[in-house]
Amino acid sequence: MADQKEKVVLAYSGGLDTSICIKWLQEEKNLDVIAVVGEVGQEHSGLESVKEKALRTGAIECYVVDMREDFVNDNLVRALAANALYENEYPLLSALSRPTISKSLVDIAHKHGATYVAHGCTGKGNDQVRFEASIAMLDPSLKVIAPVREWEFKTRPEEMEWAEAHGVEVPTTKATPYSIDDNLWGRAIECGVLEDPWNEPPADIYTMTVAPEDAPDAPEYIEVSFKAGVPCALDGKEMSYIDIIYQLNEVAGRNGYGRLDIVENRLVGVKSRECYEQPAALSLITAHKALESLCLEREVLHYKLGVEQQWATCVYYGQWFAPLKQALDAFLAHTQQCVTGDVRLKFYKGTCVVVGRRSPYSLYSYELATYDREDEFDHEAAKGFIELNTLSAKVWAQNRMQRNGTIEG
Amino acid sequence: MADQKEKVVLAYSGGLDTSICIKWLQEEKNLDVIAVVGEVGQEHSGLESVKEKALRTGAIECYVVDMREDFVNDNLVRALAANALYENEYPLLSALSRPTISKSLVDIAHKHGATYVAHGCTGKGNDQVRFEASIAMLDPSLKVIAPVREWEFKTRPEEMEWAEAHGVEVPTTKATPYSIDDNLWGRAIECGVLEDPWNEPPADIYTMTVAPEDAPDAPEYIEVSFKAGVPCALDGKEMSYIDIIYQLNEVAGRNGYGRLDIVENRLVGVKSRECYEQPAALSLITAHKALESLCLEREVLHYKLGVEQQWATCVYYGQWFAPLKQALDAFLAHTQQCVTGDVRLKFYKGTCVVVGRRSPYSLYSYELATYDREDEFDHEAAKGFIELNTLSAKVWAQNRMQRNGTIEG
Amino acid sequence: MADQKEKVVLAYSGGLDTSICIKWLQEEKNLDVIAVVGEVGQEHSGLESVKEKALRTGAIECYVVDMREDFVNDNLVRALAANALYENEYPLLSALSRPTISKSLVDIAHKHGATYVAHGCTGKGNDQVRFEASIAMLDPSLKVIAPVREWEFKTRPEEMEWAEAHGVEVPTTKATPYSIDDNLWGRAIECGVLEDPWNEPPADIYTMTVAPEDAPDAPEYIEVSFKAGVPCALDGKEMSYIDIIYQLNEVAGRNGYGRLDIVENRLVGVKSRECYEQPAALSLITAHKALESLCLEREVLHYKLGVEQQWATCVYYGQWFAPLKQALDAFLAHTQQCVTGDVRLKFYKGTCVVVGRRSPYSLYSYELATYDREDEFDHEAAKGFIELNTLSAKVWAQNRMQRNGTIEG
Amino acid sequence: MADQKEKVVLAYSGGLDTSICIKWLQEEKNLDVIAVVGEVGQEHSGLESVKEKALRTGAIECYVVDMREDFVNDNLVRALAANALYENEYPLLSALSRPTISKSLVDIAHKHGATYVAHGCTGKGNDQVRFEASIAMLDPSLKVIAPVREWEFKTRPEEMEWAEAHGVEVPTTKATPYSIDDNLWGRAIECGVLEDPWNEPPADIYTMTVAPEDAPDAPEYIEVSFKAGVPCALDGKEMSYIDIIYQLNEVAGRNGYGRLDIVENRLVGVKSRECYEQPAALSLITAHKALESLCLEREVLHYKLGVEQQWATCVYYGQWFAPLKQALDAFLAHTQQCVTGDVRLKFYKGTCVVVGRRSPYSLYSYELATYDREDEFDHEAAKGFIELNTLSAKVWAQNRMQRNGTIEG
Repeated sequence: MADQKEKVVLAYSGGLDTSICIKWLQEEKNLDVIAVVGEVGQEHSGLESVKEKALRTGAIECYVVDMREDFVNDNLVRALAANALYENEYPLLSALSRPTISKSLVDIAHKHGATYVAHGCTGKGNDQVRFEASIAMLDPSLKVIAPVREWEFKTRPEEMEWAEAHGVEVPTTKATPYSIDDNLWGRAIECGVLEDPWNEPPADIYTMTVAPEDAPDAPEYIEVSFKAGVPCALDGKEMSYIDIIYQLNEVAGRNGYGRLDIVENRLVGVKSRECYEQPAALSLITAHKALESLCLEREVLHYKLGVEQQWATCVYYGQWFAPLKQALDAFLAHTQQCVTGDVRLKFYKGTCVVVGRRSPYSLYSYELATYDREDEFDHEAAKGFIELNTLSAKVWAQNRMQRNGTIEG
Repeated sequence: MADQKEKVVLAYSGGLDTSICIKWLQEEKNLDVIAVVGEVGQEHSGLESVKEKALRTGAIECYVVDMREDFVNDNLVRALAANALYENEYPLLSALSRPTISKSLVDIAHKHGATYVAHGCTGKGNDQVRFEASIAMLDPSLKVIAPVREWEFKTRPEEMEWAEAHGVEVPTTKATPYSIDDNLWGRAIECGVLEDPWNEPPADIYTMTVAPEDAPDAPEYIEVSFKAGVPCALDGKEMSYIDIIYQLNEVAGRNGYGRLDIVENRLVGVKSRECYEQPAALSLITAHKALESLCLEREVLHYKLGVEQQWATCVYYGQWFAPLKQALDAFLAHTQQCVTGDVRLKFYKGTCVVVGRRSPYSLYSYELATYDREDEFDHEAAKGFIELNTLSAKVWAQNRMQRNGTIEG
Repeated sequence: MADQKEKVVLAYSGGLDTSICIKWLQEEKNLDVIAVVGEVGQEHSGLESVKEKALRTGAIECYVVDMREDFVNDNLVRALAANALYENEYPLLSALSRPTISKSLVDIAHKHGATYVAHGCTGKGNDQVRFEASIAMLDPSLKVIAPVREWEFKTRPEEMEWAEAHGVEVPTTKATPYSIDDNLWGRAIECGVLEDPWNEPPADIYTMTVAPEDAPDAPEYIEVSFKAGVPCALDGKEMSYIDIIYQLNEVAGRNGYGRLDIVENRLVGVKSRECYEQPAALSLITAHKALESLCLEREVLHYKLGVEQQWATCVYYGQWFAPLKQALDAFLAHTQQCVTGDVRLKFYKGTCVVVGRRSPYSLYSYELATYDREDEFDHEAAKGFIELNTLSAKVWAQNRMQRNGTIEG
Repeated sequence: MADQKEKVVLAYSGGLDTSICIKWLQEEKNLDVIAVVGEVGQEHSGLESVKEKALRTGAIECYVVDMREDFVNDNLVRALAANALYENEYPLLSALSRPTISKSLVDIAHKHGATYVAHGCTGKGNDQVRFEASIAMLDPSLKVIAPVREWEFKTRPEEMEWAEAHGVEVPTTKATPYSIDDNLWGRAIECGVLEDPWNEPPADIYTMTVAPEDAPDAPEYIEVSFKAGVPCALDGKEMSYIDIIYQLNEVAGRNGYGRLDIVENRLVGVKSRECYEQPAALSLITAHKALESLCLEREVLHYKLGVEQQWATCVYYGQWFAPLKQALDAFLAHTQQCVTGDVRLKFYKGTCVVVGRRSPYSLYSYELATYDREDEFDHEAAKGFIELNTLSAKVWAQNRMQRNGTIEG
């Protein structure tokens, strides 16, 4: 049929921006819009109502997809193997969910023969890159539209005016000054007073964690178990990784643990001040690292620190499906085979400390480490070791001494 | 004179081991012993009495050297520039003082024309390597003796027996089960029940920090200022780096902040479980990193993470005076030129969080970061950026698609 | 004066593209054009005639700037310290001259109060990035115009038509199918039949080097001396670095040495096939590395390999004036202090091999290396060294054996 | 039986040192000696006669094991994936065969219930470490004896005297002044006049390669094909990797290609001057790299350069069976999946140059690379790309300019 419209698959959240996107894609681009709502563990009051809103706003179809299993069992398994902390600080969050959502968008685009995929990200954030890079690597023939980057209204009032003029429902409550993204792995808060990095974050930005001052006066202990790098039990009770995350978000959150307040470097070249709360994520990374300190051979652990950084940077930069990220995954997966054991965490008023770790794969040897009479370490060996380990630099020092007649550089 | 004895310069602490060393070096090696006691900020009840003990035990000379200025203004300046954390966890401590002590030993050896230098370290720790490597690089012609590695008694009772038989004063109080090393930068505790990494550390091992549970119920704020990477003021009051360390050890310590409980990898190939308390060190590294997040350009910050790790490993491994460590220092020094500004820290029951950072060198740009109308970021640029930034991986995806007829890997 | 035009400083080569740029900037942008011709050691038949052409074409001013001293004594000193080879293959060339030219453009822009700087690069190469990034870092307030990226004619005939219509002199000889860039450090050839990487490069693309088959039948030896990493003499005769480059281009070139034929990855995301001839550059890097193999302590040399790669990538990507590149320079400069000595090179029909190296800073020790009776190496030390050096992995193997009951993984 | 001797498995070459080892292990250690002779492609005049000599000298058993398949299909496959060049120069050789030999020694030790393994390496080389580390990781319960490191005679004459006194056959011909090790992957020559790194290597040290001057006057072309990183054909004719090595040793050797003359850093801390001839190894690495330049995505290629260096260092240091080396293998194996295609090499008088490369996995895109009218590259995108790619450093430059009032650093 000559007049059949081309289709676009839109990542839809139910918020004002993506609602306007539906209408804008119809009117400005003459496309049929298929909305996709992802369940990734974010706070929400029912995704069916989001679906209804999409359809009301003009989408020809709306999918609500529960992506949590994929998100956890693929993305969060790999993220934990990498102890993923961008710039050694931030455990990622949006960067981890975008690939899963993108995969779903592409699958649905294929199912419907859609030519386009669309997202509601602005032109200055990281998420636009993550969506577009992910889609390009999953199906480079799909075209991406970023309405928010393209449309003509630049301020909130202009945007609301357009919405009202085109029959898009606008929220009746006052908008929060903050921009939020959240999923199982945590919650990101930016904008508003946070845009001055000298301001202390207001108490009300956090919802997953209490303030340390409001946490219980008694510490709470929990034992996390891992099998081949994947969380598998809490306090000895076997649970799925996803359930462990839900429960640790509870436990750590009520003890005031898991907040971050940092300035980070976006891929697009600007620094931004971001607050995060990631109670389960940070607890699990803490525990996982402690177990690795027992189970990983020293050279593996040292080299892995660099691989972890590269992995986190790749993922932050939207390279989830890129071949370098995949090759790093192969390295990391190899290291996780022996990361099996238990870690005891103690939560107390904003702290989470490891108070014990044990493993059948532990490379800690009491007999080698002890200064007691069980000592099996060969003290004689040290002399030869030091001699040859130092020899290269010692020859350098000798040369300097001969040239200078003194030991001065 | 044919019968003049050769001399040995001994790193002396006043403890049993190094006291026996004095006598043993005289009797077994027929050497004149010159003792050197270093003041590096450790807990002590008077170094003059240590000196007297050295002389009483048979040293022909004993120097008490205040090494704190050198230690802080050289070693701790560099350590902070490197945000030095061995294995991303441990801020170093003994590894930082050993080079300063070694330098002093070598200087005194030269002054007295000594042929030998001696230390009281065992054959399974890192410190033997640090002393011997440092000495080899400062003067490769000096010979090192490590009596504890060499002598015949292997247990504490045997050692005390020898001491008594040779007139070395033995302590009348029961020995602590722990092995301790401390200086301005912190305090290390190992051995005893800590040798099982599943045991929670007993409360009584810590002396610089209170337990978080015992810390005040109200948070305490402090503002730390830096000039070119070096701490220069607290709460706006200019102070020397050394005084800042003393004061932050107080502030952080009374708020229960600065404890570490980890399993680390020694250079000699064994894992060991170590507890540390480093209240000022960890506070300063936290603040310094936060300031760097404002002041360092992204690519510098990313690459520096790797340099930091290499630096910490070098220093942990005893390579303070080695040429690689020096070249890394040159890199780090270059990055610190613009690390000037203020950081507000909030201490509360074991936590230390950054609640504000500002700098005349800040690369955070409100106009670029904001989503408000002051926005100066060029959103149009994003499209071209994403296109070319993704192009290399997109071509790879296209090739895969052409070969496979599908997007599957 | 209300009608005074704004000024643009244009990097001018005398070729068709930049000649059209002069006219186009006048007509399309209404700017006064100041042309800058850089002497960087490229092949040319007189830069004064290039200047005259600029003025004839409409430039209000034209500077011919001899940039060779700056180029060599700053850029090529650093490049040699880094043994700079992008992707371990390509010694850079255009990437090294662009910063020098950019500096000159910015200086002249300041002198004339120009608002704009312009270059004649296309939108798919690296050079546009190098110019624009360099200019942005030297003076971020200057605006850059890239006429070739912007103008409407897309093919050579269209371009020539426009030129003729606007009175720009067009070349009367047939254009070479190749695109060439050259300077003291070498010559790059791309396009034409080279765009199929399966084609062997035609003989006629090279002008600085003869084919190995046409080189003399007898080898030619030359001794290159370095002082602190900088070439300072040939065959014992002191010469400036710049004269050494000229002479080695002769010597290596007539012996058929210095050609490269590679596929490289551009910053803009495409692979391109490039041929280079860099006789002096490759000879000097070969000699410099050989000297470093004597003079650099092992750990310095190993770590430096990574720094070298990062340096080359930074520079290839146009980051010459960026702070990371500067901090890497600080590292590299530190390592070069002891790179002093002589290297003998043997050239023969396309080969350049090191046949001798010596240095007062040599860390090669005959007494340690020899298997003869002069041997001073402590063979006893090896046992202890191997034991502790292997211990970490051995404990890992023991754990595996205990778990498995066998040695199998 | 109370009087049954314990057994030792000895790596046996048939040379004087290991022949004395047989007798010495019997007499000094009272052990039954089982000799193992490995066929790894070294030059020899019959390994059966080596076996007879072992038995004649007193070994209770001697195995001649053809290790070539394992050596090539495991070790040399991985080495090529890593383009393994220690210190970016040396393609390894002994370091690659030692793990294979060690595995065989351990297997035979298990078969015979031997308690000990022995090798004939000295105390200052790398090979002792490689044997002992490999054995420790394969079976940490086996004990290693290194007779040459332990015995009392320190010079060749003393050694020969002992041999004669104990009935060990001594060679009647004059010993070569050089120490040689060789296998399929090449041949190493050290000692003698080579111990002065200023001396040019004498012509007679090489046996696998002719001097470039003696090579044919006409170039020789050969096409090497790879499948998933493994050589699979020459000139279009399918062959096993092992046959390709044999044939390329011929082709490259007769064209004078494959010699190396370097100073390298041993693990035991000394620099040594080494000459190598590795005609097939260097040809294959050259070809493999060229194919990777087509097939590897840029970020993979860049990161892999660092992994390659780490891999080569690990293997040079004897860590073949260590967990880090294995995890690096996992990374490398992932990258090789698409390294399939053909490379044309041209050999001529000591040179080996790539003159063509092609692949079904090629990421080189004529349409993106060309400057012709087929150009599909989006030139518009460059502006936005450069803007955001430069933004981080540009903000840094702006800050500097604001602070300084000038653009000076």
